[in-house]
Parts: sequence; C-alpha cells; structure tokens
Amino acid sequence: MANPPIVCMVTDFGNADSYVGEMKGVILGICPGARIVDLTHKIKKYDVAQACYTLARSHLYFPAGTVFLAVVDPGVGGSRRGLAAKGGGKYFVGPDNGIFSFLMRDAETAFHHLAETKYFLGSISSTFHGRDIFAPVAAHLAHGVAVEDLGPKIEDPIPLPDIRPVRDKGHLLGKIIHVDDFGNLISNITAGDIRDSFGSKAVSIILGEGDRIIEGIKGCYEDVEKGEALALFGSGPFLEIAVREGRAEQILGNAAGSRLLLKVKS
Amino acid sequence: MANPPIVCMVTDFGNADSYVGEMKGVILGICPGARIVDLTHKIKKYDVAQACYTLARSHLYFPAGTVFLAVVDPGVGGSRRGLAAKGGGKYFVGPDNGIFSFLMRDAETAFHHLAETKYFLGSISSTFHGRDIFAPVAAHLAHGVAVEDLGPKIEDPIPLPDIRPVRDKGHLLGKIIHVDDFGNLISNITAGDIRDSFGSKAVSIILGEGDRIIEGIKGCYEDVEKGEALALFGSGPFLEIAVREGRAEQILGNAAGSRLLLKVKS
Amino acid sequence: MANPPIVCMVTDFGNADSYVGEMKGVILGICPGARIVDLTHKIKKYDVAQACYTLARSHLYFPAGTVFLAVVDPGVGGSRRGLAAKGGGKYFVGPDNGIFSFLMRDAETAFHHLAETKYFLGSISSTFHGRDIFAPVAAHLAHGVAVEDLGPKIEDPIPLPDIRPVRDKGHLLGKIIHVDDFGNLISNITAGDIRDSFGSKAVSIILGEGDRIIEGIKGCYEDVEKGEALALFGSGPFLEIAVREGRAEQILGNAAGSRLLLKVKS
Repeated sequence: MANPPIVCMVTDFGNADSYVGEMKGVILGICPGARIVDLTHKIKKYDVAQACYTLARSHLYFPAGTVFLAVVDPGVGGSRRGLAAKGGGKYFVGPDNGIFSFLMRDAETAFHHLAETKYFLGSISSTFHGRDIFAPVAAHLAHGVAVEDLGPKIEDPIPLPDIRPVRDKGHLLGKIIHVDDFGNLISNITAGDIRDSFGSKAVSIILGEGDRIIEGIKGCYEDVEKGEALALFGSGPFLEIAVREGRAEQILGNAAGSRLLLKVKS
Repeated sequence: MANPPIVCMVTDFGNADSYVGEMKGVILGICPGARIVDLTHKIKKYDVAQACYTLARSHLYFPAGTVFLAVVDPGVGGSRRGLAAKGGGKYFVGPDNGIFSFLMRDAETAFHHLAETKYFLGSISSTFHGRDIFAPVAAHLAHGVAVEDLGPKIEDPIPLPDIRPVRDKGHLLGKIIHVDDFGNLISNITAGDIRDSFGSKAVSIILGEGDRIIEGIKGCYEDVEKGEALALFGSGPFLEIAVREGRAEQILGNAAGSRLLLKVKS
Repeated sequence: MANPPIVCMVTDFGNADSYVGEMKGVILGICPGARIVDLTHKIKKYDVAQACYTLARSHLYFPAGTVFLAVVDPGVGGSRRGLAAKGGGKYFVGPDNGIFSFLMRDAETAFHHLAETKYFLGSISSTFHGRDIFAPVAAHLAHGVAVEDLGPKIEDPIPLPDIRPVRDKGHLLGKIIHVDDFGNLISNITAGDIRDSFGSKAVSIILGEGDRIIEGIKGCYEDVEKGEALALFGSGPFLEIAVREGRAEQILGNAAGSRLLLKVKS
C-alpha cells in the first residue's frame, strides 16, 4: 500500500480561531487518508517573507510527495493569482505573492496558475481563499490529481523583493528574519553566501547599528561561556545569533527586521 | 475500505497543558483509526456561547460522519447531563449546557442522554469529564457504536438563552460573539436575520453605544479604502465588522460582548 | 491489521516555530503510518521536572505500544547521552537528563543508550537533537525496530534530584510543579504520599510561607462555596489547589516552584 499523503500547513491564522480547523475539514472531505501536519500557524500576520524562509528550511525534512499548503495572504479578495508548484519531488499550494520565492532559484520547479475552478469549493468567500481555494486544491493534489491539471504552467511567478543578503564593497548585509521561541535571531544569510563573499576568512558580525560585534562563527553553544553571544549555523541553513543559556533577543536588543553586517575580521 | 473516522475537538483547555493530549490518548485507545482534528482549544474559558457559534459555522466544512467533541464545561462535577446528538449526518458529544443550541432549531436532530456508563472510562474524575466521559463516548461513536446505544433519547436539551439577535421596533439588536486573531469582530447576526427584518433595504450598523456608524454591507475588503471600517459577510454565516488592512478591534474599540444595532438606512 | 503506531510528543519548543513540524516530517518519512499526538510543546523552557511530571500523569491514558518522544534538552550539544526506555508496555525516547525519572521507580523499566547512529538522521546539527536524533529514533521504534537494537542497556540513567516530596518530623513538604491554564496549582504530592505519612488522618495544607491554610482534601469543587479555595485530587495523581469558579494562581498568589507543607490537622 502506498504511503498516506501528507499535507503540511503554514499560515498566519494563529491557533485561537477555527479557521485552520475548517481547512482541515475541507482537506479530509476530499482526501480522507491525508496526514495533516501543522508546520506553524504563527507566522507574523501578513509576513510573507517569514513564511517563505520557514518553508525554505523546513520542507527539506519532509518526504517526497508532501503537499505544502501555505497561506499568508494579505491580497486575498484582490487580483493576485493562486499557484501550485512542483519542485524537488514536493508540491506547494498558495497565493502568488512571493511565498514560494525560495523555489524560484531552481529552474526545475514548475509553477501553475490555479485556473481550474472545479478543484475549488463550490462557494468561494471573498476573505478566506485558504479554506475555499487553496485547501481543496492541496487536498486534490494529495489525493492524486496531477499538478498540470490544476491550470496552465506560468513562467512569471512573483518573487519577493529584497529577501537575499546584499554584497557591497566586500561586505555582506543581511537582516534578522525571525526570532524564535528561544530568543535566537535567525538571519537570511547562508553558509554559501558567506563562502561566496569571504572564502574561508574569519568574519566579524556587526549587529544593528554597530552596537554589538560578534567575532567568528562557532560550531556549538559550548564554544562560548554561559551568557555569551555567538553566531552559529544552528539547525537550519541560515546564520543564527544566540546567547548560550540565554535569550539573544533580550540580551542583544535586536528584533526581527534589524540588520546584520558581515565583513572580514580586521 | 471506509474512510477513517474523524473526531473534531473544540474546548477551552488551551494549548499549554496535557489535557487535550490525554483526551487524544483515550480516543486512539478506543478508536485507533481515528483522525483527530483540533478545531480550537482557545475558546474563552467557560464561554459556552462562543463554542456554540464556533461549532455552528465550522461543522459545515467537515464530512458526514464526523464526530464533534465539544468540552466547555463550567458545570463539570455537578448535575448537568452529558449529551450525544445526531444531526445533518454528523455527531456531537459534550455537556448539556447549551453548547449544541445551534442544532436545536433543526427538528431532525436527535439528542441522547449519556446514560450508558460502559462507554466511559472505568474511573471517572470529578473535574475532567472531557477525558473520562466525553472523549471515550466520542471515540466509541467514531468506532461504530450507534448514538441510540449511548442512552435514551431526550426532548429537553438545554438551550443557551439570549444568543439570537432581537427584533424590536424595526431594529435588530445583536452582539459581538468573538474577536478573531486578525481583530475582526464577529457578530451573531446572519444574512437571514437581516433579510427577515429589512428585506432588501440598505441598513446602517450602529456599534456599541452609538459611537460609530457603518453604512451598508460590503462584498469584500476592496470595497473600502485602506484603514476604513466595513461590515461584510466574511468566511462564515455571521456579519463581521472589519477594517481593511487593519485591526477592527483596536481601531473601533469594540470587544466581544459589545452590541451592534441594525436599522434601515435613513 | 495492526493498529497504527502512536508517537506522542512533549517538548518546550512552543507552537510558533517550525521545529515541531520538522520533527513530524522526519517521523513520517521513517514511519509513514504513525499517528502523531502533541501532548504539549509548552513545557516551561528547560524545565525538565515539569516535563517529567507531565509524562508521569499523561502516559497512563495512552494505549500500549505508544512511543513518547520527550525533548526538553538544556544540555543539547554537550555530552549528555540519548536514551530509549521501555516500561509498562510503552516506549520513551529523549535525553538522559532525568526527564524519565518517573520510570526509574519501576525495576521492570529497561533503559538503553542511543548508540546506534544508523537510526539517526545522516547529518546531526549541534542544536537540534530533537529532530536529528530523537525523532528518527522514535519513528524507528514506532516502525518496529526493537528497543534493544538502539544501543546497549544501561543501569545508570540520571534521575532528577529533589522532585519527590520530603517527609520531616511528621510533616510532608512538597512544591507546586505546574500552574495549569485554568490557574490550578498542581503539586508533586500523591495520594500514596499522604497515606504513607498520615494514614487516614485529616490534614492541613499550608501554602507558601504560611500565608494560607487549607483544611482537608475535598472530593470535588461543589464541596466548597464559589470563590473558596480547596485541595483535591483532580484529574491526575497529584494533589491540586483550586478555587471554585476562580483562578487559584491569582487568588492565592502562589506560582510554580512555591512550597506547600502538609501536617495532621490540629
């Protein structure tokens, strides 16, 4: 017997309302065997970039065939398109607002415009396409409908602007995308970005407006003393700023959106 | 093979404690194939009306056969009865405190008193009937026990008082039942209520003590300017007050429990 | 067909980040049929004792064969071992930091050191053994690997110090382990502890620094007036302090960590 299909959800709907539950009801009505996983529903409201980064790191840990249902949708009810994508053996369904930008670097990824309304609910509200369009489409994908049947292939999905770090005069300028529940500051800078800019040279990391400098990239928390700040590649592909046995957010005073500048250690 | 049974939970237990998890352990011990969906566990503590409205809108999106397990139970340990109901091809299990009032308007709905203790856990705590009575009963229903076997049919389930809007002198007086995670104000007024009171005439909506008047009911957020308030039927059957790209709760200063008065536009 | 395996998770990761979701992706990649239950992810950060007490009460409500995946892991990246345990027909996977202390009283429980790295992910981060070691091991257990195959049996799992109440001069000194979402204060004192210390004599319970005395142990909330404090065995094995239709935490001013002293009623 084939493995049960997985639908993995990421939204900014929070855990208090019944919205996510209604989407699950719709999914199970169409694909009764689906395993539904909540990646998170606590994306900052309307923060498409945060959802994009979350998917970029997390989708790697799910098996081939997983359908990712991503709904952070400030343009709901307007003219933005709905998308389904296939890339790396996985599927992605959501609005065409840049939430899948991380997939656009891979030429193999195919994007389709959700034009086949027969895969939507019969009645579409103006405010909740997550339940009325994206959930049923994701469920049909999970249930075996081919991504090509959902609508025509498109070549111009809309990317997010300004989400990659910028190289300038030998510096690398990134930003904090997310502060996690432990207070760690997660940036948009990958090991590849650092290698491309600095090779194997040691780097200094300047936080915010220069108020704090962290020297070098460590391997684990134990490489510094308790209460000391460090930069490391934690559990994802992005450089993190942490404080051993402390909350970097509180101690350093940096928040999501603040900048960090990398340069060769002088 | 038949579709796996769905048990959909709504409680005021929150997400921090192990109470919901224990209920799931009980359910899976009785009905190992059950798919368990969390509708929400963040109903305001003891707010039976909010749970009732949440179920009223959300149960429509679940497939026939779903068992709804609803535990907002301020009277636990006292003399209130336990209920199971069958209506519209779906099942409902919880306390007899009005949480299923929305089902009582339908004469087809059958209510049963949970008298057959063989479907309970062997040991019943005085404070957690959700785990010890309602979860096992819901699991037995999901596993194939007939609702008639759970106990005698009753004709007098207890309804919630004062949950429907009131018509008076050509006005319609309702209230805000719920403020959602986006700050939208969800009322207890349906499109049918408005049609019955005002036909197709345009209405004015007076919020709170008259401090704010909203003219007409719009189709979608784009019908007003950014930052402007509007009334619309969003994703559920109840009239909502929203602010385009803003939080109505903050901007209008209204909260759950506050009133709204509808009258013909003058 | 055998019942689908259950993996029940308890962590301090919170519900906002994608960490728990990534663990579920890993689990379903290894054991596609697993039913995953969230016991809670809101253990107080790094509070191994709270996780231990939560598991101690909750595991009783899950069927035999359930795999408990417990990750509250302040020592991640350091030298602490990983463990798998089998006890009472159930399985437990997590760090060797005392989180499974409640199992150590039972001589039948077998503890194994997670030495077989072939059951880990191929790449192990220094900060997220929950995803890279414990989740895959739990999934392999759920999928049929024998606990004996995970690594050698050990006789010296590390217990938590000071988690049991202390008997002294005819008194029993315990503490508040957890304040639940309803404001109830959950202690570390069982009915057996009280029986061992006081037989069937009536007891007085002195909270905190003696600022409040509660007389006797009641059967249910209805045994006191509204707004009155009481001690009772609620839904778990541990003595709770509650206020009927109120929040004991607010009214009594006691928090997690505060002490309670039991003595024979004078």
